[in-house]
Amino acid sequence: MKKNSKAVILVSGGLDSATTLAVAKEQGFDCHALSFDYGQRHTSELTAAKRVATAFNVKAHRIITIDLAQIGGSALTDRSIAVPESHTEGIPITYVPARNTIFLSYALAWAEVIQANDIFIGVNAVDYSGYPDCRPEYIRSFENMARLATKASVEGQAIRIHAPLINLGKAEIIKKGIELDVDYSLTISCYQADSEGRACGRCESCLFRKEGFAAAGIDDPARYK
Amino acid sequence: MKKNSKAVILVSGGLDSATTLAVAKEQGFDCHALSFDYGQRHTSELTAAKRVATAFNVKAHRIITIDLAQIGGSALTDRSIAVPESHTEGIPITYVPARNTIFLSYALAWAEVIQANDIFIGVNAVDYSGYPDCRPEYIRSFENMARLATKASVEGQAIRIHAPLINLGKAEIIKKGIELDVDYSLTISCYQADSEGRACGRCESCLFRKEGFAAAGIDDPARYK
Repeated sequence: MKKNSKAVILVSGGLDSATTLAVAKEQGFDCHALSFDYGQRHTSELTAAKRVATAFNVKAHRIITIDLAQIGGSALTDRSIAVPESHTEGIPITYVPARNTIFLSYALAWAEVIQANDIFIGVNAVDYSGYPDCRPEYIRSFENMARLATKASVEGQAIRIHAPLINLGKAEIIKKGIELDVDYSLTISCYQADSEGRACGRCESCLFRKEGFAAAGIDDPARYK
Repeated sequence: MKKNSKAVILVSGGLDSATTLAVAKEQGFDCHALSFDYGQRHTSELTAAKRVATAFNVKAHRIITIDLAQIGGSALTDRSIAVPESHTEGIPITYVPARNTIFLSYALAWAEVIQANDIFIGVNAVDYSGYPDCRPEYIRSFENMARLATKASVEGQAIRIHAPLINLGKAEIIKKGIELDVDYSLTISCYQADSEGRACGRCESCLFRKEGFAAAGIDDPARYK
Protein backbone atom coordinates (compact mmCIF):
# COMPACT_ATOMS: atom_id res chain seq x y z
CA MET A 1 0.00 0.00 0.00
CA LYS A 2 1.29 3.44 -0.96
CA LYS A 3 2.22 5.59 2.00
CA ASN A 4 -0.47 8.17 2.59
CA SER A 5 1.44 11.43 2.92
CA LYS A 6 -1.38 13.73 4.02
CA ALA A 7 -1.35 15.10 7.54
CA VAL A 8 -3.57 17.43 9.56
CA ILE A 9 -1.59 19.91 11.68
CA LEU A 10 -3.18 21.94 14.47
CA VAL A 11 -1.95 25.52 13.96
CA SER A 12 -2.76 28.12 16.60
CA GLY A 13 -0.53 30.97 15.52
CA GLY A 14 1.86 30.40 18.42
CA LEU A 15 5.48 29.34 18.24
CA ASP A 16 4.93 25.71 19.21
CA SER A 17 2.46 24.95 16.44
CA ALA A 18 4.56 26.85 13.85
CA THR A 19 7.51 24.64 14.80
CA THR A 20 5.30 21.54 14.63
CA LEU A 21 4.16 22.50 11.13
CA ALA A 22 7.82 22.90 10.12
CA VAL A 23 8.58 19.41 11.48
CA ALA A 24 5.64 17.85 9.57
CA LYS A 25 6.73 19.61 6.38
CA GLU A 26 10.31 18.46 6.84
CA GLN A 27 9.09 14.87 7.25
CA GLY A 28 7.55 15.15 3.79
CA PHE A 29 3.87 15.39 4.70
CA ASP A 30 1.32 17.10 2.53
CA CYS A 31 0.22 19.56 5.22
CA HIS A 32 -3.40 20.49 5.98
CA ALA A 33 -3.59 23.19 8.67
CA LEU A 34 -6.49 23.36 11.10
CA SER A 35 -7.21 26.32 13.38
CA PHE A 36 -10.06 27.21 15.71
CA ASP A 37 -11.91 30.38 16.41
CA TYR A 38 -12.99 29.45 19.94
CA GLY A 39 -13.77 32.75 21.54
CA GLN A 40 -10.13 33.30 22.51
CA ARG A 41 -9.45 36.77 23.81
CA HIS A 42 -7.76 38.08 20.72
CA THR A 43 -8.19 37.37 17.03
CA SER A 44 -4.59 38.33 16.26
CA GLU A 45 -3.83 34.69 17.12
CA LEU A 46 -5.87 33.62 14.07
CA THR A 47 -4.21 36.26 11.90
CA ALA A 48 -0.89 34.74 12.98
CA ALA A 49 -2.19 31.23 12.17
CA LYS A 50 -3.04 32.39 8.64
CA ARG A 51 0.41 33.97 8.20
CA VAL A 52 2.11 30.79 9.39
CA ALA A 53 -0.02 28.51 7.17
CA THR A 54 0.69 30.74 4.17
CA ALA A 55 4.42 30.91 4.88
CA PHE A 56 4.57 27.10 4.88
CA ASN A 57 2.50 26.90 1.71
CA VAL A 58 0.04 24.38 3.19
CA LYS A 59 -2.31 22.42 0.93
CA ALA A 60 -5.38 23.74 2.77
CA HIS A 61 -6.14 25.77 5.89
CA ARG A 62 -9.49 25.49 7.65
CA ILE A 63 -10.62 27.68 10.53
CA ILE A 64 -13.47 26.13 12.47
CA THR A 65 -15.62 28.26 14.73
CA ILE A 66 -16.45 26.55 18.00
CA ASP A 67 -18.17 28.15 20.91
CA LEU A 68 -16.20 27.17 23.97
CA ALA A 69 -17.59 30.26 25.70
CA GLN A 70 -20.86 28.29 26.02
CA ILE A 71 -18.90 25.77 28.06
CA GLY A 72 -16.97 28.40 30.06
CA GLY A 73 -14.56 27.70 32.88
CA SER A 74 -11.34 29.30 31.56
CA ALA A 75 -9.65 32.68 31.59
CA LEU A 76 -9.05 32.25 27.86
CA THR A 77 -12.73 31.97 26.94
CA ASP A 78 -14.50 33.65 29.85
CA ARG A 79 -13.89 37.40 30.02
CA SER A 80 -15.00 37.55 33.64
CA ILE A 81 -11.84 35.64 34.64
CA ALA A 82 -8.57 37.63 34.54
CA VAL A 83 -5.45 36.27 32.80
CA PRO A 84 -2.74 35.94 35.50
CA GLU A 85 0.41 37.98 34.93
CA SER A 86 3.02 35.62 36.39
CA HIS A 87 3.88 31.93 36.51
CA THR A 88 1.32 29.93 38.50
CA GLU A 89 1.37 26.67 40.46
CA GLY A 90 -0.67 23.63 39.40
CA ILE A 91 -3.24 23.71 36.60
CA PRO A 92 -3.46 27.31 35.31
CA ILE A 93 -6.76 29.18 35.04
CA THR A 94 -5.87 29.61 31.35
CA TYR A 95 -6.50 25.87 30.96
CA VAL A 96 -9.55 25.42 28.71
CA PRO A 97 -11.60 22.34 29.70
CA ALA A 98 -11.03 19.45 27.29
CA ARG A 99 -9.66 21.84 24.66
CA ASN A 100 -7.09 19.52 23.12
CA THR A 101 -9.63 16.70 23.11
CA ILE A 102 -12.06 18.87 21.15
CA PHE A 103 -9.32 20.13 18.80
CA LEU A 104 -7.97 16.63 18.14
CA SER A 105 -11.53 15.33 17.57
CA TYR A 106 -12.08 17.84 14.78
CA ALA A 107 -8.64 17.00 13.39
CA LEU A 108 -9.66 13.34 13.41
CA ALA A 109 -12.88 14.13 11.55
CA TRP A 110 -11.04 16.12 8.90
CA ALA A 111 -8.30 13.49 8.64
CA GLU A 112 -11.00 10.91 8.01
CA VAL A 113 -12.60 12.95 5.23
CA ILE A 114 -9.32 13.73 3.41
CA GLN A 115 -7.98 10.22 4.14
CA ALA A 116 -5.00 11.35 6.19
CA ASN A 117 -3.63 8.96 8.82
CA ASP A 118 -1.39 11.48 10.56
CA ILE A 119 -2.25 14.31 12.95
CA PHE A 120 0.30 16.71 14.46
CA ILE A 121 -0.12 18.72 17.66
CA GLY A 122 2.43 21.05 19.26
CA VAL A 123 2.05 20.16 22.93
CA ASN A 124 5.29 20.17 24.92
CA ALA A 125 6.95 19.61 28.25
CA VAL A 126 6.34 23.19 29.39
CA ASP A 127 2.61 22.82 28.76
CA TYR A 128 2.24 19.42 30.29
CA SER A 129 3.68 20.49 33.57
CA GLY A 130 0.33 22.26 34.02
CA TYR A 131 -2.24 21.11 31.46
CA PRO A 132 -3.55 17.55 31.85
CA ASP A 133 -4.33 17.22 28.13
CA CYS A 134 -0.72 17.91 27.12
CA ARG A 135 0.80 14.90 28.89
CA PRO A 136 2.42 12.11 26.83
CA GLU A 137 0.07 9.49 28.34
CA TYR A 138 -2.92 11.59 27.27
CA ILE A 139 -1.64 11.82 23.68
CA ARG A 140 -1.15 8.02 23.56
CA SER A 141 -4.64 7.40 24.93
CA PHE A 142 -6.17 9.75 22.35
CA GLU A 143 -4.31 7.84 19.64
CA ASN A 144 -5.63 4.52 20.95
CA MET A 145 -9.16 5.91 20.93
CA ALA A 146 -8.73 7.37 17.42
CA ARG A 147 -7.65 3.97 16.15
CA LEU A 148 -11.10 2.62 17.08
CA ALA A 149 -13.15 5.69 16.15
CA THR A 150 -12.97 5.87 12.39
CA LYS A 151 -13.87 4.14 9.17
CA ALA A 152 -10.15 3.93 8.37
CA SER A 153 -9.64 2.00 11.61
CA VAL A 154 -12.28 -0.54 10.55
CA GLU A 155 -10.41 -0.85 7.26
CA GLY A 156 -7.15 -1.56 9.09
CA GLN A 157 -5.41 1.82 8.84
CA ALA A 158 -3.99 3.24 12.04
CA ILE A 159 -4.24 6.90 12.89
CA ARG A 160 -1.03 8.33 14.34
CA ILE A 161 -0.97 11.35 16.68
CA HIS A 162 2.42 13.07 16.44
CA ALA A 163 3.58 15.37 19.21
CA PRO A 164 7.14 16.06 18.04
CA LEU A 165 7.82 18.72 20.70
CA ILE A 166 6.45 16.76 23.62
CA ASN A 167 9.75 16.34 25.45
CA LEU A 168 11.18 19.74 24.57
CA GLY A 169 11.38 22.93 26.60
CA LYS A 170 10.85 26.32 24.97
CA ALA A 171 14.52 26.98 24.22
CA GLU A 172 14.91 23.61 22.48
CA ILE A 173 11.73 24.21 20.46
CA ILE A 174 13.03 27.60 19.32
CA LYS A 175 16.42 26.14 18.35
CA LYS A 176 14.72 23.38 16.37
CA GLY A 177 12.48 25.91 14.64
CA ILE A 178 15.40 28.14 13.69
CA GLU A 179 17.12 25.08 12.14
CA LEU A 180 13.95 24.51 10.10
CA ASP A 181 13.75 28.18 9.03
CA VAL A 182 10.65 29.08 11.05
CA ASP A 183 10.11 32.84 10.97
CA TYR A 184 9.01 33.47 14.56
CA SER A 185 8.12 37.06 13.78
CA LEU A 186 4.94 35.57 12.21
CA THR A 187 3.86 33.95 15.50
CA ILE A 188 2.04 35.30 18.55
CA SER A 189 2.27 33.68 21.96
CA CYS A 190 0.51 36.24 24.16
CA TYR A 191 -2.80 35.37 25.87
CA GLN A 192 -3.91 38.98 25.60
CA ALA A 193 -2.28 40.53 22.53
CA ASP A 194 -3.82 43.78 21.31
CA SER A 195 -5.62 44.22 18.01
CA GLU A 196 -2.34 45.12 16.30
CA GLY A 197 -0.75 41.87 17.46
CA ARG A 198 1.45 43.41 20.17
CA ALA A 199 2.11 41.09 23.10
CA CYS A 200 1.64 42.10 26.75
CA GLY A 201 5.00 40.67 27.83
CA ARG A 202 3.59 39.78 31.25
CA CYS A 203 1.20 36.80 30.93
CA GLU A 204 2.52 33.28 31.52
CA SER A 205 2.70 32.53 27.80
CA CYS A 206 4.79 35.69 27.17
CA LEU A 207 7.04 34.79 30.11
CA PHE A 208 7.70 31.28 28.75
CA ARG A 209 8.42 32.73 25.31
CA LYS A 210 10.82 35.38 26.56
CA GLU A 211 12.64 32.90 28.81
CA GLY A 212 12.86 30.44 25.90
CA PHE A 213 14.42 32.96 23.50
CA ALA A 214 16.80 34.17 26.22
CA ALA A 215 17.88 30.58 27.04
CA ALA A 216 18.32 29.80 23.34
CA GLY A 217 20.44 32.92 22.94
CA ILE A 218 18.24 34.16 20.10
CA ASP A 219 16.52 37.54 19.76
CA ASP A 220 12.74 37.35 20.21
CA PRO A 221 11.16 39.03 17.17
CA ALA A 222 7.81 39.51 18.97
CA ARG A 223 6.51 43.05 19.29
CA TYR A 224 5.78 43.92 22.90
CA LYS A 225 3.62 46.81 24.10
CA MET B 1 -16.06 11.54 49.42
CA LYS B 2 -19.67 12.41 48.64
CA LYS B 3 -20.95 10.84 45.44
CA ASN B 4 -21.14 13.45 42.71
CA SER B 5 -24.60 12.97 41.25
CA LYS B 6 -24.36 15.23 38.21
CA ALA B 7 -24.31 13.68 34.76
CA VAL B 8 -24.12 15.00 31.20
CA ILE B 9 -26.46 13.15 28.81
CA LEU B 10 -26.19 13.45 25.03
CA VAL B 11 -29.75 14.03 23.81
CA SER B 12 -30.40 14.02 20.05
CA GLY B 13 -34.19 13.91 19.99
CA GLY B 14 -34.20 10.28 18.86
CA LEU B 15 -35.58 7.31 20.77
CA ASP B 16 -32.21 5.96 21.90
CA SER B 17 -31.08 9.11 23.64
CA ALA B 18 -34.53 9.65 25.20
CA THR B 19 -34.28 6.15 26.68
CA THR B 20 -30.72 6.84 27.84
CA LEU B 21 -31.90 10.01 29.60
CA ALA B 22 -34.63 7.97 31.31
CA VAL B 23 -32.01 5.46 32.50
CA ALA B 24 -29.76 8.22 33.89
CA LYS B 25 -32.72 9.79 35.67
CA GLU B 26 -33.76 6.44 37.11
CA GLN B 27 -30.23 5.92 38.44
CA GLY B 28 -30.66 9.14 40.41
CA PHE B 29 -28.42 11.46 38.42
CA ASP B 30 -28.94 15.19 38.29
CA CYS B 31 -29.30 15.33 34.50
CA HIS B 32 -27.66 17.94 32.24
CA ALA B 33 -28.75 17.46 28.62
CA LEU B 34 -26.42 18.32 25.75
CA SER B 35 -27.52 18.57 22.11
CA PHE B 36 -25.80 19.69 18.91
CA ASP B 37 -26.89 21.76 16.00
CA TYR B 38 -24.44 20.27 13.52
CA GLY B 39 -25.99 21.07 10.18
CA GLN B 40 -28.17 17.98 10.28
CA ARG B 41 -30.79 17.90 7.55
CA HIS B 42 -33.72 18.81 9.72
CA THR B 43 -34.12 20.98 12.78
CA SER B 44 -37.16 19.03 13.97
CA GLU B 45 -34.59 16.73 15.64
CA LEU B 46 -33.55 19.64 17.89
CA THR B 47 -37.19 20.52 18.58
CA ALA B 48 -37.62 16.91 19.70
CA ALA B 49 -34.49 17.15 21.87
CA LYS B 50 -35.99 20.18 23.63
CA ARG B 51 -39.31 18.37 24.16
CA VAL B 52 -37.51 15.33 25.60
CA ALA B 53 -35.29 17.43 27.89
CA THR B 54 -38.32 19.35 29.15
CA ALA B 55 -40.37 16.19 29.70
CA PHE B 56 -37.59 14.79 31.89
CA ASN B 57 -37.24 18.07 33.77
CA VAL B 58 -33.47 18.25 33.28
CA LYS B 59 -31.37 20.64 35.35
CA ALA B 60 -30.00 22.34 32.22
CA HIS B 61 -30.10 21.85 28.46
CA ARG B 62 -27.39 23.26 26.20
CA ILE B 63 -27.50 23.20 22.43
CA ILE B 64 -24.06 23.73 20.90
CA THR B 65 -23.70 24.79 17.29
CA ILE B 66 -20.90 22.99 15.51
CA ASP B 67 -20.19 23.18 11.84
CA LEU B 68 -19.61 19.62 10.70
CA ALA B 69 -20.59 20.75 7.20
CA GLN B 70 -17.11 22.37 7.02
CA ILE B 71 -15.69 18.89 7.52
CA GLY B 72 -18.14 17.19 5.13
CA GLY B 73 -18.13 13.54 4.13
CA SER B 74 -21.60 12.41 5.27
CA ALA B 75 -25.12 12.25 3.88
CA LEU B 76 -26.32 13.79 7.17
CA THR B 77 -24.28 16.99 6.84
CA ASP B 78 -23.62 17.24 3.10
CA ARG B 79 -26.72 17.93 1.08
CA SER B 80 -25.07 16.77 -2.13
CA ILE B 81 -25.13 13.18 -0.81
CA ALA B 82 -28.56 11.46 -0.81
CA VAL B 83 -29.88 9.64 2.29
CA PRO B 84 -30.32 5.96 1.29
CA GLU B 85 -33.86 4.60 1.59
CA SER B 86 -33.12 1.01 2.62
CA HIS B 87 -30.82 -0.95 4.91
CA THR B 88 -27.22 -0.83 3.70
CA GLU B 89 -24.16 -3.07 4.05
CA GLY B 90 -21.00 -1.95 5.90
CA ILE B 91 -20.48 1.59 7.17
CA PRO B 92 -23.46 3.71 6.06
CA ILE B 93 -23.06 6.97 4.14
CA THR B 94 -25.07 8.53 7.00
CA TYR B 95 -22.01 7.96 9.20
CA VAL B 96 -20.62 11.37 10.21
CA PRO B 97 -16.79 11.32 10.52
CA ALA B 98 -15.72 11.25 14.17
CA ARG B 99 -19.14 12.52 15.27
CA ASN B 100 -19.36 10.68 18.56
CA THR B 101 -15.77 11.64 19.36
CA ILE B 102 -16.63 15.32 18.85
CA PHE B 103 -19.91 15.01 20.80
CA LEU B 104 -18.27 13.18 23.71
CA SER B 105 -15.42 15.73 23.74
CA TYR B 106 -17.88 18.59 24.27
CA ALA B 107 -19.67 16.50 26.90
CA LEU B 108 -16.32 16.01 28.63
CA ALA B 109 -15.64 19.77 28.58
CA TRP B 110 -19.06 20.56 30.05
CA ALA B 111 -18.72 17.75 32.62
CA GLU B 112 -15.43 19.27 33.70
CA VAL B 113 -16.94 22.73 34.15
CA ILE B 114 -19.99 21.55 36.14
CA GLN B 115 -17.89 18.95 38.00
CA ALA B 116 -19.79 15.93 36.74
CA ASN B 117 -17.96 12.60 36.53
CA ASP B 118 -20.59 10.77 34.48
CA ILE B 119 -21.46 11.04 30.80
CA PHE B 120 -24.27 9.08 29.10
CA ILE B 121 -24.51 8.25 25.40
CA GLY B 122 -27.23 6.22 23.68
CA VAL B 123 -25.18 4.12 21.27
CA ASN B 124 -26.43 0.58 20.79
CA ALA B 125 -25.92 -2.75 19.09
CA VAL B 126 -27.91 -1.73 16.02
CA ASP B 127 -25.66 1.31 15.50
CA TYR B 128 -22.39 -0.43 16.15
CA SER B 129 -23.00 -3.01 13.49
CA GLY B 130 -22.27 -0.15 11.09
CA TYR B 131 -20.72 2.84 12.87
CA PRO B 132 -17.15 2.42 14.17
CA ASP B 133 -17.65 4.99 16.93
CA CYS B 134 -20.56 3.08 18.46
CA ARG B 135 -18.62 -0.09 19.30
CA PRO B 136 -18.09 -1.08 22.96
CA GLU B 137 -14.29 -1.05 22.53
CA TYR B 138 -14.50 2.51 21.19
CA ILE B 139 -16.52 3.67 24.21
CA ARG B 140 -14.00 2.08 26.61
CA SER B 141 -11.08 3.72 24.80
CA PHE B 142 -12.79 7.13 24.96
CA GLU B 143 -13.29 6.60 28.70
CA ASN B 144 -9.60 5.75 29.14
CA MET B 145 -8.62 8.89 27.26
CA ALA B 146 -11.09 11.03 29.24
CA ARG B 147 -9.55 9.77 32.47
CA LEU B 148 -6.27 11.40 31.42
CA ALA B 149 -7.70 14.51 29.75
CA THR B 150 -9.12 16.56 32.56
CA LYS B 151 -8.34 18.48 35.70
CA ALA B 152 -10.57 16.06 37.62
CA SER B 153 -8.38 13.19 36.42
CA VAL B 154 -5.29 14.93 37.81
CA GLU B 155 -7.17 15.27 41.09
CA GLY B 156 -7.93 11.53 41.12
CA GLN B 157 -11.54 11.51 39.98
CA ALA B 158 -12.41 9.09 37.20
CA ILE B 159 -14.76 10.05 34.39
CA ARG B 160 -17.23 7.31 33.50
CA ILE B 161 -18.79 6.97 30.03
CA HIS B 162 -22.11 5.13 30.33
CA ALA B 163 -23.64 3.48 27.28
CA PRO B 164 -26.57 1.68 28.92
CA LEU B 165 -28.13 0.57 25.63
CA ILE B 166 -24.94 -0.72 24.06
CA ASN B 167 -25.94 -4.37 23.95
CA LEU B 168 -29.61 -3.81 23.19
CA GLY B 169 -31.50 -4.03 19.92
CA LYS B 170 -34.26 -1.55 19.06
CA ALA B 171 -37.12 -3.67 20.44
CA GLU B 172 -35.35 -4.11 23.79
CA ILE B 173 -34.59 -0.38 23.96
CA ILE B 174 -38.25 0.44 23.34
CA LYS B 175 -39.42 -2.05 25.98
CA LYS B 176 -36.97 -0.59 28.50
CA GLY B 177 -38.14 2.94 27.68
CA ILE B 178 -41.81 2.02 28.08
CA GLU B 179 -41.00 0.58 31.54
CA LEU B 180 -39.38 3.93 32.39
CA ASP B 181 -42.35 5.93 31.07
CA VAL B 182 -40.62 7.41 28.04
CA ASP B 183 -43.16 9.13 25.81
CA TYR B 184 -41.86 8.13 22.38
CA SER B 185 -44.30 10.47 20.65
CA LEU B 186 -41.85 13.24 21.66
CA THR B 187 -38.97 11.63 19.74
CA ILE B 188 -37.98 11.73 16.07
CA SER B 189 -35.80 9.07 14.47
CA CYS B 190 -36.03 10.04 10.78
CA TYR B 191 -32.92 11.26 8.92
CA GLN B 192 -35.09 13.47 6.73
CA ALA B 193 -38.18 14.49 8.71
CA ASP B 194 -40.14 17.45 7.32
CA SER B 195 -40.47 20.83 9.02
CA GLU B 196 -43.58 19.61 10.86
CA GLY B 197 -41.67 16.66 12.30
CA ARG B 198 -43.23 14.00 10.09
CA ALA B 199 -40.94 11.06 9.36
CA CYS B 200 -40.28 9.68 5.87
CA GLY B 201 -40.79 6.07 6.93
CA ARG B 202 -38.22 4.90 4.37
CA CYS B 203 -34.71 5.86 5.54
CA GLU B 204 -32.63 3.36 7.50
CA SER B 205 -33.35 5.06 10.80
CA CYS B 206 -37.13 4.92 10.17
CA LEU B 207 -36.82 1.26 9.16
CA PHE B 208 -34.97 0.35 12.38
CA ARG B 209 -37.56 2.25 14.42
CA LYS B 210 -40.55 0.63 12.74
CA GLU B 211 -39.03 -2.85 13.00
CA GLY B 212 -38.22 -2.19 16.67
CA PHE B 213 -41.78 -1.16 17.58
CA ALA B 214 -43.20 -4.08 15.59
CA ALA B 215 -40.87 -6.58 17.33
CA ALA B 216 -41.70 -5.06 20.74
CA GLY B 217 -45.42 -5.38 19.97
CA ILE B 218 -45.95 -1.69 20.72
CA ASP B 219 -47.63 0.94 18.53
CA ASP B 220 -45.15 3.46 17.09
CA PRO B 221 -46.48 6.94 17.94
CA ALA B 222 -44.33 8.61 15.23
CA ARG B 223 -46.15 10.60 12.57
CA TYR B 224 -45.24 9.39 9.09
CA LYS B 225 -45.80 11.32 5.86
